Amino acid sequence: MADPNPPPPEETLKHHLEEVITLLNKQKLEETVLQQRAMPRQELVETLLHKRHQAALKQKLDQLHAADIAYILEALPLEQRLQVWNLVKSELDGQILLDVSDAVRETLISDMDTEELLSATGLLDTDEIADLAPDLPEEVLQELLEKLNDQNRKRLQSVLSYEEDTVAALMDFGMVTIREDISLGVVLRYLRRRGDLPEHTDKLFVVDEHNVLKGALPLKRLLTNPPEKPVSEIMSKEVVSFHLDDDAEEAARAFERYDLLSAPVVDRESKLQGRIGVDAIVDYIRRKSDEEMLSQAGLLEEEDIFSGVWKSAQNRWFWLAINLVTAFLSTRVIGLFEDTIVKVVALASLMPIVAGIGGNTGNQTSMMIVRSIALGVINPSNIKRLFFKELAIGFLNGTVWGSVLGLIAYLLYQDVELGLVMMGATLLNLLVAAMMGITVPLVRDRLGLDPAIGTSVLLTAMTDGMGFFIFLGLATLILL
Amino acid sequence: MADPNPPPPEETLKHHLEEVITLLNKQKLEETVLQQRAMPRQELVETLLHKRHQAALKQKLDQLHAADIAYILEALPLEQRLQVWNLVKSELDGQILLDVSDAVRETLISDMDTEELLSATGLLDTDEIADLAPDLPEEVLQELLEKLNDQNRKRLQSVLSYEEDTVAALMDFGMVTIREDISLGVVLRYLRRRGDLPEHTDKLFVVDEHNVLKGALPLKRLLTNPPEKPVSEIMSKEVVSFHLDDDAEEAARAFERYDLLSAPVVDRESKLQGRIGVDAIVDYIRRKSDEEMLSQAGLLEEEDIFSGVWKSAQNRWFWLAINLVTAFLSTRVIGLFEDTIVKVVALASLMPIVAGIGGNTGNQTSMMIVRSIALGVINPSNIKRLFFKELAIGFLNGTVWGSVLGLIAYLLYQDVELGLVMMGATLLNLLVAAMMGITVPLVRDRLGLDPAIGTSVLLTAMTDGMGFFIFLGLATLILL
Repeated sequence: MADPNPPPPEETLKHHLEEVITLLNKQKLEETVLQQRAMPRQELVETLLHKRHQAALKQKLDQLHAADIAYILEALPLEQRLQVWNLVKSELDGQILLDVSDAVRETLISDMDTEELLSATGLLDTDEIADLAPDLPEEVLQELLEKLNDQNRKRLQSVLSYEEDTVAALMDFGMVTIREDISLGVVLRYLRRRGDLPEHTDKLFVVDEHNVLKGALPLKRLLTNPPEKPVSEIMSKEVVSFHLDDDAEEAARAFERYDLLSAPVVDRESKLQGRIGVDAIVDYIRRKSDEEMLSQAGLLEEEDIFSGVWKSAQNRWFWLAINLVTAFLSTRVIGLFEDTIVKVVALASLMPIVAGIGGNTGNQTSMMIVRSIALGVINPSNIKRLFFKELAIGFLNGTVWGSVLGLIAYLLYQDVELGLVMMGATLLNLLVAAMMGITVPLVRDRLGLDPAIGTSVLLTAMTDGMGFFIFLGLATLILL
Repeated sequence: MADPNPPPPEETLKHHLEEVITLLNKQKLEETVLQQRAMPRQELVETLLHKRHQAALKQKLDQLHAADIAYILEALPLEQRLQVWNLVKSELDGQILLDVSDAVRETLISDMDTEELLSATGLLDTDEIADLAPDLPEEVLQELLEKLNDQNRKRLQSVLSYEEDTVAALMDFGMVTIREDISLGVVLRYLRRRGDLPEHTDKLFVVDEHNVLKGALPLKRLLTNPPEKPVSEIMSKEVVSFHLDDDAEEAARAFERYDLLSAPVVDRESKLQGRIGVDAIVDYIRRKSDEEMLSQAGLLEEEDIFSGVWKSAQNRWFWLAINLVTAFLSTRVIGLFEDTIVKVVALASLMPIVAGIGGNTGNQTSMMIVRSIALGVINPSNIKRLFFKELAIGFLNGTVWGSVLGLIAYLLYQDVELGLVMMGATLLNLLVAAMMGITVPLVRDRLGLDPAIGTSVLLTAMTDGMGFFIFLGLATLILL
């Protein structure tokens, strides 16, 4: 793929968006005026004015980079989005589909017929088709498969057979391979004859006659060494490489750790299968952090901000339902102590505080553990140490904040025993929260569940329930 | 900097860690045995056995890449961490200090004297020294500044004068510049004479005699075009470039959008000042997403999991205190309705559910808004539309879940009016939550505050307070 047109910086981008919106609004305004004069839609589209607007809009869009059009499509409501989408040069369609978010892609694809989809995706690389595959109608995918040559069809099928978070799902096939017995001069001539290099090529892969990876020749070594030297002497023999089924997260960590730009992907026999580029890694890191943040906030996936109410509600109900069930269960504990509350009604306004501080400290602890699990620094030799440390922090926090809360409760209600209950319950609940904050993510990890997702909901339910139980139980014992 | 040794994949890395721990434990065990025989520490260190262990450990460490040693240091408790740190080859010290997390870096630096720090940092590039600068003692930084040549001293001072989240803070100076009037063949000879290229060089920067950026020559074009062609004909004239004070987040988005590997940084007169590499962008994206997740969980910054209890507690108190204050304020609302609760004690166990579901839906809404602000797709023309959409979702959710909760309340307490109160309060609170979920991040953004950080705490406090008020207020009106 050739270099794109000069992509503009961020401010220019917002400026482009404003221009497009202005053009769209002008058009809309004049349409409304004409419609008020009862001109039928069909004739309206035929007016000179309308055509002139379309032309201006199209001219504007033709200057833009695919990624910029993607950004503009994201920021437009559905109707205007499709209006713009239909004016976009068709050779950019595929690239734009790759660049927009899942939710917006869905709206664009549902506006295209099979033929349009085929022509849009026909220009894409095999790995890019694989990225779109989940959103394409079955018949389009089948036709695409038939059109591909043998090698690419096999590649596509192979990529599609791997799970989302594996190295195979991130790889592309933009690799240039050479043999180790030729000289750098021959490589330079070969590249010149080839005429173009795949995007993000920072090294050539050296393979033997069976396609087994022998090493890599970084372009910078190719450029700075004498042409008569053989590849075998200049190449780096030990390259960070990944297996097809390696975990994508670990590949991302390795890219960060060793500052990689690209890395070869091999099968179990060390045969070169593809390449991972840092661009795929950047997208992966962003996507993962987005997923975690969305799930923390109780959303299943990214929303198109202009999607319908019904569609958005579906995206939000899963976590909402889970939160409701857990909240309901944890507050049932309160029901057990209604007699106590009737006698000491102050408990009603103090109990959410005890439960709340438990949830907060539990989340602090669990976040530390979740991160340590992700970074791989938790091992059997230090779990015990961590456990004691978190309990110690819980004890410190419980003593300090428990005293503060106890004092405030005493001052508010002039009741020493109530203050003591508040203090004791806070301390106890913080100890429970610390233990759960360690246990929940560790257990989820041991069970093969993602420790980052869902831990917070589970933990808060437990600290709430325990908080109510400890506080009201203690109150029943001491105050009644 | 030369290519590092072959860095191992993830599993090998964990294996390295285990080996180091085994060696450390063996040593510890034998020391304990000897200490039990009352051998003084000094003599103990002199024993042959001890020396043999040290040698084995050192041999192991000498094989490792700086980033891998950094990982091992992260996973070791303080005492063992310093033991390993003192065995590391001193030429890797600087690189390792760059690779470890802030918290671990602090422990390592506090173990080094001025001389060690000077020799460790002496081997680093100017931009790397800038990264370490905030953690270095003042006298070390002064001495480093004196040792640098004029150009590098100016560069370092300039980088240090910019704020953390600007492009200037991310840039390095590993750029190769050429003139546009020479031929590609001359460039090739120049590079060969130069002998090495900075890490991550994917393009050479073309400047005029005043150092004004004219364009960029991608290495792949250099490699695939005939040597007799002039640079001016082959270079891309419009390059994505950034200004020194551009926002780092926007640079990161541009890198993602245009799949960049490196980009020039220029001043207001278009003079080339430095370069941003995708490695710095990857680190930035990871750091930002970590910061957001940590603050969401109520932590100020990354913790060294082996840091002392006191140090960890300090990291956690800021958000804990804020949460306590807000929880306290929002529950004061309950105090206003104590009479009502005494009469209808069922309210005590139902009220946390109403408050909770408000917090959950409010967070869902605010997350959508925070992300849309970050992606730049919110503009004056669509805010109203968003507002109505979120209110509609709130109404839908309120009707559905309000009915469910109302029904459950009725079934539990056999009281129709209580069920109606539950239903009405849920609906009202969800509408309030939706409005706040939009307003809070938008207002924070307008005030120049980070909409992602702190929004959740503020929002939950408001939905809790309003939830209690609406539910108990409605109950007082209807049930009493």
